[in-house]
This record gives sequence, structure tokens and C-alpha cells, in this order.
Amino acid sequence: VKLSQKGEFGLIELIRRECGKQNKRIMLGIGDDAAIIQTDSAKYSVLTTDALIETVHFNLDYFTFFQLGWRALAANLSDIAAMGGKPVCAVVTLGLNDRISVENVRELYQGMLSLARKFNCTIAGGDIVRSPKFLMISISVLGEVERGRVVTRSGAKIGDLICVTGQLGEAQAGLELLLERRKRKGLRFSSGLTKKHLLPFPSLAESEYLLRKFRLNSMIDISDGLASDLHHICEESQTGAVIYADKIPVSPKAKQASRLLDKDALEFALQGGEEYELLFTLRKKQAAKLLKSAKFKFTVIGEIIPPKRGIWLQKGSRRLKLFPLGYTHF
Amino acid sequence: VKLSQKGEFGLIELIRRECGKQNKRIMLGIGDDAAIIQTDSAKYSVLTTDALIETVHFNLDYFTFFQLGWRALAANLSDIAAMGGKPVCAVVTLGLNDRISVENVRELYQGMLSLARKFNCTIAGGDIVRSPKFLMISISVLGEVERGRVVTRSGAKIGDLICVTGQLGEAQAGLELLLERRKRKGLRFSSGLTKKHLLPFPSLAESEYLLRKFRLNSMIDISDGLASDLHHICEESQTGAVIYADKIPVSPKAKQASRLLDKDALEFALQGGEEYELLFTLRKKQAAKLLKSAKFKFTVIGEIIPPKRGIWLQKGSRRLKLFPLGYTHF
Repeated sequence: VKLSQKGEFGLIELIRRECGKQNKRIMLGIGDDAAIIQTDSAKYSVLTTDALIETVHFNLDYFTFFQLGWRALAANLSDIAAMGGKPVCAVVTLGLNDRISVENVRELYQGMLSLARKFNCTIAGGDIVRSPKFLMISISVLGEVERGRVVTRSGAKIGDLICVTGQLGEAQAGLELLLERRKRKGLRFSSGLTKKHLLPFPSLAESEYLLRKFRLNSMIDISDGLASDLHHICEESQTGAVIYADKIPVSPKAKQASRLLDKDALEFALQGGEEYELLFTLRKKQAAKLLKSAKFKFTVIGEIIPPKRGIWLQKGSRRLKLFPLGYTHF
Repeated sequence: VKLSQKGEFGLIELIRRECGKQNKRIMLGIGDDAAIIQTDSAKYSVLTTDALIETVHFNLDYFTFFQLGWRALAANLSDIAAMGGKPVCAVVTLGLNDRISVENVRELYQGMLSLARKFNCTIAGGDIVRSPKFLMISISVLGEVERGRVVTRSGAKIGDLICVTGQLGEAQAGLELLLERRKRKGLRFSSGLTKKHLLPFPSLAESEYLLRKFRLNSMIDISDGLASDLHHICEESQTGAVIYADKIPVSPKAKQASRLLDKDALEFALQGGEEYELLFTLRKKQAAKLLKSAKFKFTVIGEIIPPKRGIWLQKGSRRLKLFPLGYTHF
């Protein structure tokens, strides 16, 4: 059977079944943003991994090595945030070849370290191998989470409100601008429009605040895209969902980019991956408390509904089936 | 500066300096087999990572997917053994493309799981990405180690005896037989000769036994080759070393293979990587106790000497400078 017939998420599901339950200390294994491991400490350990491959995730004609190092680590830190955890250390595997210089590697580490230091995360080891064709960066981050604060994809309850942090669409808009500029040399835009794609900031502070102050039922980071990640929550929680197009906090920068590209900014917001915002659900009362607190930007975009009612996008008077569109690897 | 001018180990040293000391909970960072992290548990956490890339570490014409999964995990478990730790769980990143089928992926996981289950190590997560050209497997393993049992590369003392577990040369001999058979179709040999390359067994039981019963001063797993890994211990411990050619436990299978290949089995034992045996040093009294215990095969092969006397191989009456030869990535 071809990978493309099974699809990325089908393959993950197959691997999850193959691996089954094993060590009972693993509180949460395959199928969430990170694994949760019980230790004899008061905290759980959190472990996650994320890789970037040249030509698949990035191209060196619009990514500096500094940005690349930053972004590779950001993806992992975002997974730690999605579990309610804090990062402790990272191990980094680099697949390099002769196109890459020693200075490039140093710059890549400087990017990684710039982000790591903001969160007291140490680069504690790694592996360096030759990768004959394409540059590869694979990072694993070990973190920890207080036992009462773990939040997973599977806890959403019918009646929960669906919230997001920040604004959406900018990461995808930035990527598309960068790709378009390779084709249209004359295309001019401010570098601010691409920053969220090149130097994304993981929502660790937001996660910490949310879990210290509120009771969340489920959470995921938006790395596959809002539509896909909402599907992940609904599948793991066995619920449906409705979100409202006019409530989605589409970034003004994404709108600006969408005009340059003659595309729909709402699509960037729904399907764009690598946003590293948090998507979470909580009871109405908790949401009301949350919206009164002005510390970060949070927006209610919809509601969890019974599974048989499916997953919908309400757009004006039309209720449209929401498909988990977005980038998949196969 | 080109990577080949800096070399693999030069690059690691540069990265180590770049990263510097950060979080004080990281008891041991870049430069050993795995990182050691302090938690509020009675045990330390151990984190390591290791990647395999098609054409660099393996070829699919002589590796089955089962063997590949096994071997990728074995490399990581061996690093955990080298620190005196026990594995808890692993996260697995696969870089796949259209040449790989769903069945291939399942077989790869079956290989990994066969080994993982022997040590109660759970596959707890991962990342699946497209790798346009070559298959890539990057695994990180989280383990733990009792505080009193941590053993590093840097603790060797002058006067320590140098020991190895098991027998050496078989992994390299197996690899060279497999490569030779691609050229010489008529070459026949028993599959037992290649098993240590295709299905290496990490020395976790030996490590556990050694650290429960004896006081070791330093330890490393033989993954770069005996000569290189002895250099790693001497550099980190700031010592010299002498090892005796006639004491090195060269595997009979390696000798058998060396005759087929018309090569020197001692070179396989000195330079062959991916052996996953343990190289360790301890005081003479401890070594005497160790040699009386018959639980595993341990061999004294030399002695730690002052740094200014260098690193030597005693071969009959000749004392030869021992170079850290063996495979390097750049």
C-alpha cells in the first residue's frame, strides 16, 4: 500500500495501533502533541520531537540559518506549550553536507540558542550526520509539567467553547509571499509580513497563564492548520464542533498579504500550518473569566457539539462542512 | 570554512562552545553519550538522540526494514547503557518517500518494538515527514539513572585499567562482507557473520551489572570504533592510554570474515564503529573483582597513563601511536 493512499494521519494511526500500550508509566503516548511520562517526581516529564527537511519545510533561498535554527526549535517548544509544560533541554540532530559551511552551522545554533535562552531551555546534546542531498534538522525537547496541569487533545466536552490565542493566517501568508517572490521578482512587501513564518514564537507564556488561572478541557497547538487541528481535538475527544467565520481572528497582516496575493485571508487562517498559536476548549464560565483577563489576546471562535452533528464552519447564514484541509506529507 | 576541514569532532567541539553552560539542572550536556538532567526525583533523566540516513548508514539492498528499525533504536539504547541508565521511552522521526510502502513502515516499527520490549522501552511519539531523496530515521530516547550510578567519559584516572565487554570487530566485518557481496556475487558466508551489524544488541544488562556491583571511573559505548572512543575518553579525562593488541578480544567471526575479505581482523576491532560494546576504566582492585565474576565477558585491554605519554597500541615489542581512525561523517 502506498503512503499516499494511507495518508499522513492514517499512517500515524497505524503506528499507534502497532505500538499499543506498553510501559504503564507512559501516561500519554502516540497521538498527542507530546508524550507524558510519570516519574517519581511531583512533575511529569514531557517529550516531543519535530523535524525540518530542506525543500519540504524550507528553502535556503528565503531562510537564513539563524531563522532555520530558531524555527526548528520553535516547533518543538510549541508542542511543549500545547501540553501545558515547560521546556528543560533539547537534543539536536543535524544532517549536513558539503554545501553547508561551518559558519552556517554556527549561525543555525545561534538562532536556536536565541530562542532557547528565552525559555531557559538548554541544548544538551545531539548527533551530526551526513545527509547527502538535503539539509535536515531533527530536534527533541524534554520538558516537564505539573501533574494537575496536563492538558491533552482528548478532553473536549460538548458545550465547551473553542478558543484560540493570538491572530491567525500570518504564517501561511508569509510563506506564500516568500514563494511568490521567487516567481515574481518585482513583488515588494514589508519584512514584517513574513516574520511569523520565519521566526515564529511559541505560545509558552500563554499556556502557562492559561493553565495557572483556568481549567481547560483540551488543547493543541496549531501546527497543521486550524481546520486540521480542530479535527484532531474532535477525533480524540469524540465530539463535533462548529466555528464561526466572522469570529476567527484573522491577522491584519494576513489580510494585507492576501490582497497582494489575490487570495482569501480566511483560508490562510483555516488551513495555514505552523501558526504555533494554541487552540483550546473550556467551559463557558471559564471562558467568561478568561475573556475578562486582559493579559493575552484570546478569542472564542466556536463551540463543541455532539459528534453526530459533525464539524462545521458557520459563514454568514451558511453552515459549511469544515474539511481538515492543509498541508499533509503524503 | 568547509565541514571537511573542521571534521565531525571539530564541529561538535565548536557547537559545544557555542552552546556553553546554560540551565544548571543540566548535569552533563554536549560531549558525552547522552545528556544528564536533574529533576526533583531521586533519579536523573538521561536523554540521547541518534539518526540513520540511507546511503550513509545503511542501504536497503542488504537491510530489511525490521533490521533497520531494530538497529536505529539499538544505537540509542547503547548510549543510555554507556551512561549507566535504563531506557523509559523513545520518540521516532521518520523521513519517508514514495519508494517506501505502508508495509515497510509497519515492518520497521516491528523491528523497533521487538528490541524496545526487551527493555520495557515504550515508543511514545514521533514525527513523520517527507524526505524526498533518502530514508531517514532519527530516534531520541529518554531514560533514567540512579544518582550514584552516572558514569561519564571524563572520569578516567591514571592507573585505571581499560576494559571492554564482549568481543570486537564483528560489526565492521559484517558490514564489509555485505558491501563486498554487492560487488562479488559469488561470495558466500553464513548469516551469523553479519548479525552484529544488522541486529546489534545494546549492552544494557552489562551496564546495569557493572554499575550495581563495581565502581567505574569512566565509560563510553563503542560506536565510533575502539580507537576513536578510547580517544574520546582520554580527551575528556585528560589522560593518555596504552592498549595491548594481543589482549583485544577479537571475535572469531571477525577473524573468519577477515580471511574471506583478505583483511586484518585487528583493524576491524580497532576501527570498526557501531559495535555497541562498552569501553570502561576502573581501578585495578575493582578490575580484579570484576574478572572473578563470570556473569558476562569482560576483558582488560590496557591501562590509563599520564596525558603527556599519549595514546598507544602495544603490538608485540612495538609501541605504535594509536590514531582515532574509523568512519567520520566529514
